Amino acid sequence: MTKHLISLAAMLALATPAVAQEEAETFPGPGEIVAGASAEEWIAIRPEDLIVMTLAPDAMGEKRKVVIQLMPAPFSEDWTANIRTFARSGWFDDISVNRVQDNYVVQWGDANYDNPESDGEPKSLPEGLVPTDEAHYTVPAEAIGLPRLLADSSRDRALKTDQPIVTADATAGMILANGLTDPYAQLSLPYKGWPLASDYGQGENEATARVWPVHCYGMVGVGRNLTPDAGTGAELYTVIGHAPRHLDRNIALVGRIVEGIEHLSSLPRGKGQLGFYEDESRRTSILTVRVAADLPEGEQPRFEYLDTEGETFARYADARANRRDPFFNIPAGGVDICNITIPVRRVGK
Amino acid sequence: MTKHLISLAAMLALATPAVAQEEAETFPGPGEIVAGASAEEWIAIRPEDLIVMTLAPDAMGEKRKVVIQLMPAPFSEDWTANIRTFARSGWFDDISVNRVQDNYVVQWGDANYDNPESDGEPKSLPEGLVPTDEAHYTVPAEAIGLPRLLADSSRDRALKTDQPIVTADATAGMILANGLTDPYAQLSLPYKGWPLASDYGQGENEATARVWPVHCYGMVGVGRNLTPDAGTGAELYTVIGHAPRHLDRNIALVGRIVEGIEHLSSLPRGKGQLGFYEDESRRTSILTVRVAADLPEGEQPRFEYLDTEGETFARYADARANRRDPFFNIPAGGVDICNITIPVRRVGK
Repeated sequence: MTKHLISLAAMLALATPAVAQEEAETFPGPGEIVAGASAEEWIAIRPEDLIVMTLAPDAMGEKRKVVIQLMPAPFSEDWTANIRTFARSGWFDDISVNRVQDNYVVQWGDANYDNPESDGEPKSLPEGLVPTDEAHYTVPAEAIGLPRLLADSSRDRALKTDQPIVTADATAGMILANGLTDPYAQLSLPYKGWPLASDYGQGENEATARVWPVHCYGMVGVGRNLTPDAGTGAELYTVIGHAPRHLDRNIALVGRIVEGIEHLSSLPRGKGQLGFYEDESRRTSILTVRVAADLPEGEQPRFEYLDTEGETFARYADARANRRDPFFNIPAGGVDICNITIPVRRVGK
Repeated sequence: MTKHLISLAAMLALATPAVAQEEAETFPGPGEIVAGASAEEWIAIRPEDLIVMTLAPDAMGEKRKVVIQLMPAPFSEDWTANIRTFARSGWFDDISVNRVQDNYVVQWGDANYDNPESDGEPKSLPEGLVPTDEAHYTVPAEAIGLPRLLADSSRDRALKTDQPIVTADATAGMILANGLTDPYAQLSLPYKGWPLASDYGQGENEATARVWPVHCYGMVGVGRNLTPDAGTGAELYTVIGHAPRHLDRNIALVGRIVEGIEHLSSLPRGKGQLGFYEDESRRTSILTVRVAADLPEGEQPRFEYLDTEGETFARYADARANRRDPFFNIPAGGVDICNITIPVRRVGK
């Protein structure tokens, strides 16, 4: 019984049964919708935006690789530039995962940094780092053309209603345009492959509104000291629990994990304050961290994300808000931005 | 360096610094607020509502216990009755954790149930199980007096505004009364120690409105087959990722994990479909499952939850919505129901 558990999976799945049914064809689940996307709806992620982090093998000797996608401009450019510098200088090599706090974050960096209990010396920072500025946790809404997007045609509902925006008749562009009901922001929306939020319309206008990435599961951010420190990018964390949205606008988000998050989320929780390991032997070593573009071409991982402005994504987001596949009795009629996980897939091996 | 990492923790914490500051005294964090609650604000959980699940020791030989609090009436009574029957008959002993799906659920039960690939026979169900009915995934809003609570004095804002409800001047009872902005429901609110949602006001009135528990991190639910099956309570799961709120009203929630969730959330993810283990040796054995009330008095774990109708809880919820402790630059101005984790604490050893 080491192979397919399909029946058990299907019957107790909390998800779409594996066995196709007539109803399943009429009301596909989110995964089926994504599987039907055309090749043109998948957008390649630049190798310059992919970071490959190799952890020490696990206790059973299995390899552990984590792949991070960095956010593109105009978001968090100070920090993503630095992260490439840390990676390219080899500074990230031989750091470790030092903190695992349940339902919150996994954090990695130089365990000797700012640590009076440590026997070791902290690493010297590499040359070429740029200054970081907490003002850049957010960017002008105008930088992504948000006011125009929202003003376009039927696209202004987000600012005028508190109803769930994603509906049965969702069509291409609608998700992007309308945003979502969000307790943490005036509106939120998936945009060019990223979960964003904005204060546009909440006393803010075209000239003053801001937009920012949000702390969904798997997003990667930058540890920092108290304000005005904004962190260099040396110390990173990822979310492994319910989205801690109170951190939005308070810290730089630089990307997300697109493969291998299970190697971080399943690590033993730290028993010290805030989930730091009291026993340093529990730390996980990070052997190397590389920009994918710098790897030999045959070793570069390739990933694509589903075009969030396309028709398939709109149908997918609608299905996330209104599950009608056979397991479900009642569609929710709404969804939060962090439950519309942006589909990302590996291409080739 | 096996002891306090206080400085490292403080400086990179994404949380309240450990070192007290003047500002911290003026603007305490959520944890500090809870720590200041009076003894009368903590409400004992009945031993009849606590389930102690002992897993096989981990690879390092450490004990693993998980404690579940069952929901009280009027919620999910069919299933909580059955779960006590399964525990008291010994039926749960020697089952296993069979599924660990990242950012979703951990599921445990009889690995031979409904599993044609299995070598073993499924267990016979115990006597005394009651029928379960999917109509009981929700209960009448009237059963908890919701319409009266919301109609009382300044308590009707939830139905009239899309603004964040939790504000700086939160006072006792306000959180309960007003509910929260919620993409998944007309309103949501912490009530008698549980996260609930309701459709009251969304085309539903006093006679027709329903209320239901929601799928926050750590909540425990009942695996089932397709409708009209509603599950017996033999197969259980807990949430280990971002709240999968689309499951609300589609499945029975029966409680939450109040201690030891890290023993489940940090398990290796299954590599089969939906996170089931393909390799059965990866399953974690569940040795015994007991109702706390049945244990010798000295072995009964004791837990309390913070009165969600008290003043301290209102201040805590407000701080979850508006972090003003020193690490934070910008308070969110809102919060979702699953980020107001109900404080629960162990009493004694």
